[in-house]
Amino acid sequence: MPSLADNLKAFQALKTNLFEKDFLLTWEHPEEEIRAILTLADTLKTLHKDGKSFRSFDTGLAISIFRDNSTRTRFSFASAASAMGLSLADLDEEKSQVAHGETVRETANMISFLTEVIGIRDDMFLGEGNSYMREVGDALTDGTQQGVLHRRPSLINLQCDIDHPTQSLADLAWLKSHFGSLENLKGKKIAMTWAYSPSYGKPLSVPQGIIGLMSRFGMDVRLAHPEGYGLIPDVVELAGKQAAASGGKFSVSNSMEEAFAGADIVYPKSWAPFHVMQRRTELLKTSDKDGLKALEKECLANNAKFMNWECTRAKMDTTANKKALYMHCLPADITDVSCKAGEVSAEVFEQYRIPTYQEAAYKPFIISALMFLTRMKDPGAKLEQIIKRSQNLSL
Amino acid sequence: MPSLADNLKAFQALKTNLFEKDFLLTWEHPEEEIRAILTLADTLKTLHKDGKSFRSFDTGLAISIFRDNSTRTRFSFASAASAMGLSLADLDEEKSQVAHGETVRETANMISFLTEVIGIRDDMFLGEGNSYMREVGDALTDGTQQGVLHRRPSLINLQCDIDHPTQSLADLAWLKSHFGSLENLKGKKIAMTWAYSPSYGKPLSVPQGIIGLMSRFGMDVRLAHPEGYGLIPDVVELAGKQAAASGGKFSVSNSMEEAFAGADIVYPKSWAPFHVMQRRTELLKTSDKDGLKALEKECLANNAKFMNWECTRAKMDTTANKKALYMHCLPADITDVSCKAGEVSAEVFEQYRIPTYQEAAYKPFIISALMFLTRMKDPGAKLEQIIKRSQNLSL
Amino acid sequence: MPSLADNLKAFQALKTNLFEKDFLLTWEHPEEEIRAILTLADTLKTLHKDGKSFRSFDTGLAISIFRDNSTRTRFSFASAASAMGLSLADLDEEKSQVAHGETVRETANMISFLTEVIGIRDDMFLGEGNSYMREVGDALTDGTQQGVLHRRPSLINLQCDIDHPTQSLADLAWLKSHFGSLENLKGKKIAMTWAYSPSYGKPLSVPQGIIGLMSRFGMDVRLAHPEGYGLIPDVVELAGKQAAASGGKFSVSNSMEEAFAGADIVYPKSWAPFHVMQRRTELLKTSDKDGLKALEKECLANNAKFMNWECTRAKMDTTANKKALYMHCLPADITDVSCKAGEVSAEVFEQYRIPTYQEAAYKPFIISALMFLTRMKDPGAKLEQIIKRSQNLSL
Repeated sequence: MPSLADNLKAFQALKTNLFEKDFLLTWEHPEEEIRAILTLADTLKTLHKDGKSFRSFDTGLAISIFRDNSTRTRFSFASAASAMGLSLADLDEEKSQVAHGETVRETANMISFLTEVIGIRDDMFLGEGNSYMREVGDALTDGTQQGVLHRRPSLINLQCDIDHPTQSLADLAWLKSHFGSLENLKGKKIAMTWAYSPSYGKPLSVPQGIIGLMSRFGMDVRLAHPEGYGLIPDVVELAGKQAAASGGKFSVSNSMEEAFAGADIVYPKSWAPFHVMQRRTELLKTSDKDGLKALEKECLANNAKFMNWECTRAKMDTTANKKALYMHCLPADITDVSCKAGEVSAEVFEQYRIPTYQEAAYKPFIISALMFLTRMKDPGAKLEQIIKRSQNLSL
Repeated sequence: MPSLADNLKAFQALKTNLFEKDFLLTWEHPEEEIRAILTLADTLKTLHKDGKSFRSFDTGLAISIFRDNSTRTRFSFASAASAMGLSLADLDEEKSQVAHGETVRETANMISFLTEVIGIRDDMFLGEGNSYMREVGDALTDGTQQGVLHRRPSLINLQCDIDHPTQSLADLAWLKSHFGSLENLKGKKIAMTWAYSPSYGKPLSVPQGIIGLMSRFGMDVRLAHPEGYGLIPDVVELAGKQAAASGGKFSVSNSMEEAFAGADIVYPKSWAPFHVMQRRTELLKTSDKDGLKALEKECLANNAKFMNWECTRAKMDTTANKKALYMHCLPADITDVSCKAGEVSAEVFEQYRIPTYQEAAYKPFIISALMFLTRMKDPGAKLEQIIKRSQNLSL
Repeated sequence: MPSLADNLKAFQALKTNLFEKDFLLTWEHPEEEIRAILTLADTLKTLHKDGKSFRSFDTGLAISIFRDNSTRTRFSFASAASAMGLSLADLDEEKSQVAHGETVRETANMISFLTEVIGIRDDMFLGEGNSYMREVGDALTDGTQQGVLHRRPSLINLQCDIDHPTQSLADLAWLKSHFGSLENLKGKKIAMTWAYSPSYGKPLSVPQGIIGLMSRFGMDVRLAHPEGYGLIPDVVELAGKQAAASGGKFSVSNSMEEAFAGADIVYPKSWAPFHVMQRRTELLKTSDKDGLKALEKECLANNAKFMNWECTRAKMDTTANKKALYMHCLPADITDVSCKAGEVSAEVFEQYRIPTYQEAAYKPFIISALMFLTRMKDPGAKLEQIIKRSQNLSL
């Protein structure tokens, strides 16, 4: 790992334009910003490892809005807020009311008078989560321009229907660390594949986030899923363009075996087909319980045709040197452990269990880096100050 | 806006006696204290606007007890706690048990060993919310005198059955800012009027808080409501006395039109009649669901007779220069937006939407000021220290 | 009370080995460590009384996991976290999922990347609460050794099926203060007795914690309960051995009168018989509602035979000089106050109400001391630094 001084120098050489902005989709941000985020996350992780505080605020609120259950991301956000010196306030929609429409505009302002960042998870409704975030963002921009808010809080996407940027950036940080540098990722074969799970309706944001980010670093990105399990077409198209532009490759197949063959990295994970999520969204909106049950039954029956989409020892043996890096956003559906038949065999998961934890370990530092970059006017100078201070200040 | 130095000077000239005291009803506090609160809130708001921290504690707890749903006040309290350097702890009565009787005395002490302030919202039961706060306060006084608590935490009323002081003080701070000074409010006509809403049972604390505070600053306070929609008689009587003493006026009528005619400020808002809240309190206590339904039906039918109590463009045209300042504690029932027919027309609300947000923006700073004044032994010296420190310390 | 300088000197003379360790059962720790905890808690309490901050962290998370309702311990933990400079994050198992099995290992790591301490209450299932804590602890050790966690967070037992160490240590700190020193406790007679309550199924951890700790300081510990209301046999055996080793006494009887006769301290408290808790655990595991109802009925009927196990004025008159110190972990079942017939008469409780609050007042400082000792590499030097700093820094 580079020294703090090297990291600081590298960070200061990278230009970012995130001050008082939002972070909603990785592909809206230039590669230089992505590199700055990773370099900063590495720096903060090193400081923490050394027992040094990287507190960057004296006071202020970090608000989280979780419209879906969460443990990992919830605690990553809470950890980042604490490390940055912000107080966490969770907006529990049962105890308040932030419905769509008029009140989004109002509530966005009402909670933001002394707020620095707002993290939102809204991944249940296809076509809505990201839109909701932008509606909140527009209200904050308006409130700031009208003089209601002294400063515009920044939004951080903690998973929407399109992207899961704090996950994909943590994954990329882990790959950078594992393979030594972003440059070393060029030409690496990564298999982002569907995998069987005894549940249905898992969001598309992780596979979309992965192909939308990894395709920008010269990798050979192989998306594989059973027929009918496609992702949002726009994101697939984007991945192809980005791969071409970065000197990498992008392919889509209906074969897990093909994707795994010679792969350096495998990311087998269940998701619901795009068109199923569209139907599910309609049913959820109308609270059509019978319709949802029927859809679940149909989907599980369909899933069951693809139980062989499991990451097994035999499949791992077909990867590069038989030892591709296995990745997962966790929790995984592990055969004979968390379910009868799942995404990955117990043997493979156990072999890679610790690496998946190390992968997850990057998320609090990625979120900290996003908080830092969206709130500090001169991030390079501020980081230098924090590193200098760290000579004296422990946690 | 006056400079920080001017504000500091003005603040230091005002005497307050709030150290380790509670803030439950505005009219229990001398005008000088009210002025000190407003001056301090302005100062803290200026510091925040300049990106400066006004953290006043190194550690300590701020506890909130919400016996009713809340977004605005909840986040205002959380924001103030964070800005002051206190950790927020919410007492969720479902996860604990603070019933009336023996355990109030006990629990008040049990949660207070390292606590600086306790904010309470208890506005559901007429005749009880404020009494409950005083019961908690007595327990804290006793615990401190008996040596159980090292210091007596201060209570802040976040809305009770009688007053909503953080709302009315934020409203007054907004009026002070809008009209330039408290002195400029002398003679201003303010119409605090009932308005139609498709719900019933809204607390009386906002209209009572407004007439109980604004009548102290020489304003012409006009309370208007349909016959039978009266407020707590004691508060109405108090408003009259205060108006006379301050060189202002106070009148009660049953005509929205009369109250609006020539008004400089209008505050149209729904509330339940006093005697309905008394009946409702009895029914809530005995959990009489059928009785509550019958009462609701009766009240909604009665409300429906007064659907013309809506703040419309036509009514606004009768105010001073046709442009009285519209105020609301939010959320408003907006005709054709949040309901079919409500307190205010969409046109009027949209015109004044941003001013209502600016009105709300004062609440976190009012709460911060109350925390500061009730906890700092020498508030003038402490504020001077914070302003001096702010040259170096950003948020 | 000794001066800060005396306390510091005493603390620095005591050797502890708690850095990055857990605190699960008092009897796993040498007497010297127990003395260090009490001395530190006293020191922190003195600092707080003087209005001085003992903040020991710049940032970091303190996580609480409550698998049972709690007010006292919840706020003690929150208070301690705030005073130490840690942000509190509560793991609400309804909003996440930390089941037994595979996911304990995973979740323990996922929530711990920037976490300093984890406090756990898990007292519902006999034979499981303490085991669960050790399972979490093993996962943290493994995660740290594998390089997933930069530092191993420390676990603090906030009540399990076996012990309630923060309660028993707070009780001991109170006794030390009340009688002047730990040395003065030698020979003191303490009656830890069962008492009647109109409920059933109260945990065994308080009486077990008391006999498991007080028996180490030369006291005459008298455990008394109706036949069939025994505690976990291992703990009873341990208490006997410890009493012998410390020059004290330990006896078990079936007579409240016998235990009270000449006692210096009485601790009358209801609990469920050990064998009932075993049956209850099985029924809870299988969610056997009918079985639970039947068990409750049987137990309440059995309890009713022992309604005379109440702490009354008459029984208090048989204690040393008729004025033994009454203790309780609160809330007590008070006859004619919180129930028709309970653990203690209203007269006796009212007489000792304030002393029970003073007893409870030690808990936040005991938890702070455990956080400090388990996280500071050189606690003696750190405390010296905090005391020196306190000359300048108020709360």
